[in-house]
Amino acid sequence: MIKKQHVMTAPMGWNSWDCYGGAVTEEIVRQNAEFMAKYLKPYGWEYIVVDIQWSEPDSLGHVYRPFSELCMDEYGRLIPAPNRFPSAADGKGFAPLAEYVHSLGLKFGIHIMRGIPRQAAWKNCSVYGTEYTAREVADPSSICAWNPDMHGVDPKHPGAKAYYDSIFALYAEWGVDFIKCDDICRELPRCTDELRLMSESLQNCGRDMVFSLSPGPAVPELSELYKDVAHMWRITDDFWDNWHLLYDMFSRAKTWCIHTGAGNWPDADMLPIGALRQCKNPDIRTKFTQDEHYTMMTLWSIFRSPLIIGSEMTKMDDFTMSVLTNTDILEMHRAARNAHEVWRRKSAEGEAILWTANHAEKPGRYAALFNAGERDAEIGFALTELELTGAENATNLWTGESLPADEILRFNIPKHGAVALWISEK
Amino acid sequence: MIKKQHVMTAPMGWNSWDCYGGAVTEEIVRQNAEFMAKYLKPYGWEYIVVDIQWSEPDSLGHVYRPFSELCMDEYGRLIPAPNRFPSAADGKGFAPLAEYVHSLGLKFGIHIMRGIPRQAAWKNCSVYGTEYTAREVADPSSICAWNPDMHGVDPKHPGAKAYYDSIFALYAEWGVDFIKCDDICRELPRCTDELRLMSESLQNCGRDMVFSLSPGPAVPELSELYKDVAHMWRITDDFWDNWHLLYDMFSRAKTWCIHTGAGNWPDADMLPIGALRQCKNPDIRTKFTQDEHYTMMTLWSIFRSPLIIGSEMTKMDDFTMSVLTNTDILEMHRAARNAHEVWRRKSAEGEAILWTANHAEKPGRYAALFNAGERDAEIGFALTELELTGAENATNLWTGESLPADEILRFNIPKHGAVALWISEK
Amino acid sequence: MIKKQHVMTAPMGWNSWDCYGGAVTEEIVRQNAEFMAKYLKPYGWEYIVVDIQWSEPDSLGHVYRPFSELCMDEYGRLIPAPNRFPSAADGKGFAPLAEYVHSLGLKFGIHIMRGIPRQAAWKNCSVYGTEYTAREVADPSSICAWNPDMHGVDPKHPGAKAYYDSIFALYAEWGVDFIKCDDICRELPRCTDELRLMSESLQNCGRDMVFSLSPGPAVPELSELYKDVAHMWRITDDFWDNWHLLYDMFSRAKTWCIHTGAGNWPDADMLPIGALRQCKNPDIRTKFTQDEHYTMMTLWSIFRSPLIIGSEMTKMDDFTMSVLTNTDILEMHRAARNAHEVWRRKSAEGEAILWTANHAEKPGRYAALFNAGERDAEIGFALTELELTGAENATNLWTGESLPADEILRFNIPKHGAVALWISEK
Amino acid sequence: MIKKQHVMTAPMGWNSWDCYGGAVTEEIVRQNAEFMAKYLKPYGWEYIVVDIQWSEPDSLGHVYRPFSELCMDEYGRLIPAPNRFPSAADGKGFAPLAEYVHSLGLKFGIHIMRGIPRQAAWKNCSVYGTEYTAREVADPSSICAWNPDMHGVDPKHPGAKAYYDSIFALYAEWGVDFIKCDDICRELPRCTDELRLMSESLQNCGRDMVFSLSPGPAVPELSELYKDVAHMWRITDDFWDNWHLLYDMFSRAKTWCIHTGAGNWPDADMLPIGALRQCKNPDIRTKFTQDEHYTMMTLWSIFRSPLIIGSEMTKMDDFTMSVLTNTDILEMHRAARNAHEVWRRKSAEGEAILWTANHAEKPGRYAALFNAGERDAEIGFALTELELTGAENATNLWTGESLPADEILRFNIPKHGAVALWISEK
Repeated sequence: MIKKQHVMTAPMGWNSWDCYGGAVTEEIVRQNAEFMAKYLKPYGWEYIVVDIQWSEPDSLGHVYRPFSELCMDEYGRLIPAPNRFPSAADGKGFAPLAEYVHSLGLKFGIHIMRGIPRQAAWKNCSVYGTEYTAREVADPSSICAWNPDMHGVDPKHPGAKAYYDSIFALYAEWGVDFIKCDDICRELPRCTDELRLMSESLQNCGRDMVFSLSPGPAVPELSELYKDVAHMWRITDDFWDNWHLLYDMFSRAKTWCIHTGAGNWPDADMLPIGALRQCKNPDIRTKFTQDEHYTMMTLWSIFRSPLIIGSEMTKMDDFTMSVLTNTDILEMHRAARNAHEVWRRKSAEGEAILWTANHAEKPGRYAALFNAGERDAEIGFALTELELTGAENATNLWTGESLPADEILRFNIPKHGAVALWISEK
Repeated sequence: MIKKQHVMTAPMGWNSWDCYGGAVTEEIVRQNAEFMAKYLKPYGWEYIVVDIQWSEPDSLGHVYRPFSELCMDEYGRLIPAPNRFPSAADGKGFAPLAEYVHSLGLKFGIHIMRGIPRQAAWKNCSVYGTEYTAREVADPSSICAWNPDMHGVDPKHPGAKAYYDSIFALYAEWGVDFIKCDDICRELPRCTDELRLMSESLQNCGRDMVFSLSPGPAVPELSELYKDVAHMWRITDDFWDNWHLLYDMFSRAKTWCIHTGAGNWPDADMLPIGALRQCKNPDIRTKFTQDEHYTMMTLWSIFRSPLIIGSEMTKMDDFTMSVLTNTDILEMHRAARNAHEVWRRKSAEGEAILWTANHAEKPGRYAALFNAGERDAEIGFALTELELTGAENATNLWTGESLPADEILRFNIPKHGAVALWISEK
Repeated sequence: MIKKQHVMTAPMGWNSWDCYGGAVTEEIVRQNAEFMAKYLKPYGWEYIVVDIQWSEPDSLGHVYRPFSELCMDEYGRLIPAPNRFPSAADGKGFAPLAEYVHSLGLKFGIHIMRGIPRQAAWKNCSVYGTEYTAREVADPSSICAWNPDMHGVDPKHPGAKAYYDSIFALYAEWGVDFIKCDDICRELPRCTDELRLMSESLQNCGRDMVFSLSPGPAVPELSELYKDVAHMWRITDDFWDNWHLLYDMFSRAKTWCIHTGAGNWPDADMLPIGALRQCKNPDIRTKFTQDEHYTMMTLWSIFRSPLIIGSEMTKMDDFTMSVLTNTDILEMHRAARNAHEVWRRKSAEGEAILWTANHAEKPGRYAALFNAGERDAEIGFALTELELTGAENATNLWTGESLPADEILRFNIPKHGAVALWISEK
Repeated sequence: MIKKQHVMTAPMGWNSWDCYGGAVTEEIVRQNAEFMAKYLKPYGWEYIVVDIQWSEPDSLGHVYRPFSELCMDEYGRLIPAPNRFPSAADGKGFAPLAEYVHSLGLKFGIHIMRGIPRQAAWKNCSVYGTEYTAREVADPSSICAWNPDMHGVDPKHPGAKAYYDSIFALYAEWGVDFIKCDDICRELPRCTDELRLMSESLQNCGRDMVFSLSPGPAVPELSELYKDVAHMWRITDDFWDNWHLLYDMFSRAKTWCIHTGAGNWPDADMLPIGALRQCKNPDIRTKFTQDEHYTMMTLWSIFRSPLIIGSEMTKMDDFTMSVLTNTDILEMHRAARNAHEVWRRKSAEGEAILWTANHAEKPGRYAALFNAGERDAEIGFALTELELTGAENATNLWTGESLPADEILRFNIPKHGAVALWISEK
């Protein structure tokens, strides 16, 4: 295994993409960090991650500008655009912003793209500390299908390792705690060698960093490779506030659940809740219904996906806050073990899905019952279906209500809604 | 759900196919039942199952004779051939043999084929208690691909239900406890309606019978249908004493493990151990090595497959007996919960597989570590990989040896071998 | 090559299926034969073929009755049901009817199913001239998916050859000129050995018989096998009076055209024209429009498919008669060579298709232009597209009209319609 | 149709790739042109084509150098590297070389890549005659998978048309007669819009140019698109002197033969004969046997593929010259019509293939018989298989020998060899 750092629980944090695309600014990041420190940190939320295009002075929201001039040092390493991140001026990079985030008791993360800037190749930069050049390192036939900035490297060229070493050394200097590397997760096994190279540079850079791979869907056959090099990897393409994407996550989670835990965190992507797409229109809010919020948080938590907030947090409403700070649900997110689908029943009337998990320390079982159909429905299950024989008491995690542990538990669940239960055993 | 009877643990027993094909006799069945009662019953073994072709007087071993004359009553219901099952004479059917098996404290099962005998259609038998005829009920285009005896029924014809009711009524009279129904499991969804019809007849026949479906591989997409109607279903085509088939079972078990338990028993097929294929040559014994025995019993037990002995038991050797009566392993077979693959690592050197499961009642974890490679190897895992934090002690289930619960547990495992562990937690 | 007889032109005739299913009678056959002799024979039409189920006394129209009692001799050979074919009484079989058809100057054909009657196996008939039995010859796992009467034979059993020899000897005695063998054409390569066996029996039976294989679609990869053993083989499943089936025939013909000619006749199936499905309702007539008639006859003729009339001929209307007796079109059916698609142009407006062929003896080119779209359209082509440089004159084959051989020829063609041209060269 | 020029016969010529890769020089081109003018022009050979990388000063043979500096004008249009093409100095481009080739009575062609140079985008050249820039026109996500030089254009941007107009205007000024456009043929339908745009620019540039698309394999479903815009398109990836590639061409030719002729020339690629790969080693000669030469030239000629010599012609041996100047074969290449496979027979002994074609002007038939097996064999066919009834005489085109037109023609053909025949009819 290349990976050295053991990330004990699935990371919880915030990322700028869903609300600002490639156009977030230092001020926004600071405000969100402050909000998190004040209101969410007590519940375990801790990462603040700056997403894509932070080196581009004139970056737009969710589209990319080809051949734009990126901020870069003489060694072909991208640096933050000072017009957007003023504290980065004078070559300070993200160090001042990271320091500020740390001062709030939080951790700081950045997004990177696989590869070396195309502009570094055309400017023929040298690779830091070597006699190699970006032209030698770049693979002209390796590009990202959706972003115009980079060339993949030729992993067999010795300069490729030197280049990756040089960027992770810079990130370590800056005090980065979390790397979201893009254009790599679903590109395997095509760029496996490049991933391994990058992972080694990260491991050897002298600072612990969570290593998160995007975009999905990850390739199920390669589960051991992801576990070997990364802490998180996306099991889906970009997730947005759309029921069909949420519905799809049940089968993705079913595929990946046996790989969750022990420092490995298959990632169902950010939570597109609250105020979204602020770069387009400050009035946009999530299209998810309240029931869909329950379904999403229940599934992400029993499955132990990383939880990364996608919204402008300073505009958070009370309901969203209540969903993000339910301590019983967040305990499930930490303590669930061996989560898996029990059954999925589809009929003319609708569709119901049952998941279960153990608790790491207490006898009893979590049960998550979902109404994936298009109508409100009464849905139930028998305790024997979970092989529970000594059940004592059940708690509805979202309402806090205590229920008798009857042989059969039935609930009226609105369409797209969920019930999450803890069933204690003697 | 059609299924009413709840079979709490995966069935354990004996079946005549692996040693006698279609040619077992009453005498052999009695001798094996006596052996089981005396030596294996204390360990939980209880079913005695007569496999295919019991109605054919001149049946051979593992091949079928087309157009042979089967023993049948006037209603097209097959009955045991009295030359092979003397106690069945005078229309007594399997009742005397079942009674004898019951007298030993065991349970009695039989094999049936989906459908109605072709010979019943050509003789144009009437269907018991109705004015319908076998010709009306039989579907001439529905046949078994590998056995020449039956036509499937037309499930929409009212006589089809009457026919299935009539045969299960007969089996209930005989005192049958277990039905292995063939030519149906992997034929879904093509013959789903016929399966549902049959299952209803079985449920309403007035006697509890375990309902087991063959041959596999079962269709994973139809898991809820299997659970709805049957207690066991084969996840594989016929399993024999061949490493490649055993090796394949790891991925089959991975697919099906979430459906195991709570009265549902995905079935990895009989254990081809000890004296096999006696109808060919009484000297034939299993080709499995001792290490392959450990691998098979460990996987079947942690996965909680039904355990059905395929050998002539009266010729059992000490090693085989020790494998079948290891109480720690058999406890795992009863008490394992949420079993699943943790990882599968393939490299130039070989292949290692780790499974884990909880115990129904005790804190701690089962771990099963397999050397699926072609060379002896040192293989290990870290307790953190199982998310075990408070481990106390480990027990090697095959040797009884107690081990310190070190952070990393390593074993020299021979090729094709296995280590099964219980790791207790405070 | 097994095939000995060289059938120089694609067979033209009549078949009872489209109008009578499995229920045609001798009287109907005689009336249609008389009609053909009088009105169609001068144009080259000559085969009269009795389709399926002629041995079943109570046969219905287009559905099959399982387990019905077929007329059969003691050797398991099916014979005509005398209630439907009175002249077959007293073991005369089809000999009297064949003799009558011959007396009209026509040829006589019958339909057979691959295999040996299931009822012959259950009655355990002996195979003519041998000590083998039908049970030994029949393969109990080989059945037809849509007809309940037969078992395929085991081609490796010596009795299988004897059985096929015995039936073709009978057909030769009867004076049969044409065998349409069913349940075989699309079953290849699964029953290749049985096909070869049957073909040898036919070749050695002492009488020339056209050998026609059904049902399609034939397997393109096996073209050489079809050419080796048969004169005709169906390139499609049953063809009926439905535009979509006619439309599909363009691509089927494109695939098979290089195999047409030289005694090999890929078969686009019967012409479902005029009075059809008479067994259901004597008022039913084809749903094809007149333009679809032109398209069908143009395509079948330039492609040189066998032409087999599917209607009750005594009810033929003038338009249908004109289509079947257009001497220019029928000359194309005999003389076209190297027919092939030139182009197929699909656009928002519609779809046009151009075919061309040489004439066996005259300089010049056939061109067939089809409007396969859903709207009337002006469609044209340039003579250079056919690489014609010395064109003299064009003739519209359906109207007889003479046209100047302009560089570009354009026609207003109704939807689903066709223009067929002969373009002469100096 | 976009295409205006009608290319009446399949082009014949020479191309520099097989012998010089990307490193041919003006001197070599001139020598080969002189050879062709003197020895081959009388037989119909006429095109001299400079293949890839002519704008790269330091180009190597058959590999590409990423990020190398290409010769380019201020409008992002590539121009010949003057160190390799001295007459191109002072902005004269290929005009002087084209003029010299024309002076020999031959035609001049060049290779181009789809798109606009990446270096034009990074230098941000303006597009000739417009206010657009290369950055606006280039699509950063459109690259060639195997060559590092270009970006595809965004066909919806108005500057894309302007760019293509500007390069074809330049080629017209130079006097180019033939464009081999690369990275486009097998990329359809992905870059259909770019192809149509380019084709329009070519058609409107004011000079006739043969438009040839590479690399293959072309997409059969898009045959009408190729015919609409191009004169030639490659039906195969690069073809080299390897039997397996030659063997594959039989099925490729079978697929494409109906689209050959009438100005459309599906292209089986260059003839890798004589002195090849001179840039690696001047001693390299083709690995094809003499029999493989016969097979290749026979198939290319009856199928009417373009014939483009791949060797250094000044080193041509007598045998190769005889193959390229056989007037009977070259007549077949001009006059064959409706060529197609008749049969392909594979057996344990080997494989034989028969093709046939008409002659544009004379009664009779071409027949090409190939031994595609691995052993010498006697192979034959019957005249009836070609539906020839009035055959008079046969001529062996490779030997000139006259043969009686017997009913069956048989030949001893060496492995991988061919016999080509003209069979005259009365």
